[in-house]
Amino acid sequence: MTRGGRPRDGRVDAAIATAARELLAELGYAQVTVDAVAARAGVGKAAIYRRHSTKQEMIFAALVHDLELSGTPDAGSLRADLAALTREIVASLSGPPAGLVPGLLADVHADPALAARFVSTFVGAERACVSEVLDRAVARGELAHRPDAAVTHALLLGPIFAWLFLLLEDPARLPTLATAVAVATANALLADQP
Amino acid sequence: MTRGGRPRDGRVDAAIATAARELLAELGYAQVTVDAVAARAGVGKAAIYRRHSTKQEMIFAALVHDLELSGTPDAGSLRADLAALTREIVASLSGPPAGLVPGLLADVHADPALAARFVSTFVGAERACVSEVLDRAVARGELAHRPDAAVTHALLLGPIFAWLFLLLEDPARLPTLATAVAVATANALLADQP
Repeated sequence: MTRGGRPRDGRVDAAIATAARELLAELGYAQVTVDAVAARAGVGKAAIYRRHSTKQEMIFAALVHDLELSGTPDAGSLRADLAALTREIVASLSGPPAGLVPGLLADVHADPALAARFVSTFVGAERACVSEVLDRAVARGELAHRPDAAVTHALLLGPIFAWLFLLLEDPARLPTLATAVAVATANALLADQP
Repeated sequence: MTRGGRPRDGRVDAAIATAARELLAELGYAQVTVDAVAARAGVGKAAIYRRHSTKQEMIFAALVHDLELSGTPDAGSLRADLAALTREIVASLSGPPAGLVPGLLADVHADPALAARFVSTFVGAERACVSEVLDRAVARGELAHRPDAAVTHALLLGPIFAWLFLLLEDPARLPTLATAVAVATANALLADQP
């Protein structure tokens, strides 16, 4: 039985993800269709719909990993760890093609199942990095008690997201903003100790 | 010449805006159409398209004012002004119907003309409030030099946006976050003086 030269198994996942990335970069989020991804990947639409129930799920699966941080090796102090973490957040948010992050976010808010996956993957992975940095600061004795990880996460991620996607400010000034965010967050955590 | 009982002139603008708000609350951002707004407003589609070139422009015109702050009366100190400003930002972002802010933001990123209007209206109005608070602190002698308004804006707005729309955290905890944001930003501004 022939499969017409179509890629099989894990290679189909990879072919779909690669095609989705290429088309997102070329066309923008709103213009990408399951048809176009199937054609570019050299697979049938059915192969995509066996894996993903909607276009949004397909794009989410292909791209959420691009938004994930690569990890936060111990930089020796809370200040240095927060500086590294903000630089990683800047890289994760400024890397994807224009329009992708806001497009994905709108779809997440329109679909409770996608929202649950977004929280368990993207938010969960980034939160784990934040928690690790806070735990290390407690272990070093820099912090007497463990700060709230959700609040810390919002203080770090929020200004960088706002700069790029809400305020539409100059990305060339992101390093300046990242430094301000890391310093302000470190000062807030270090001041808020008993 | 009869107009079939349709509202005229400025009343048409108001009828379109009211219908758009009602339908956004009932159906969600993605489901609202120009047809539905025209029917609810009791106007023809042509009346809408004479005013707004797209559905996105129509919704933007109807709703961007909901996102605008009502102003920042002098609360006596930089700390008190920043606390009031973060409470206003919380109110502006948590008021609109679910999905509206992320939906509008995705459309802004898909349309350069809408992006320019978004920056000149929403961002500009909120930035003016931030600048006013900073100017007052300089006039009071609390700050020796005027901090960067764009960075300050990102530090205030970003964490609140992230809490609601990226991290999907509990809105009931927003007052706690708002306090943390106001204190951290005040400390950052007051520490960063020559």
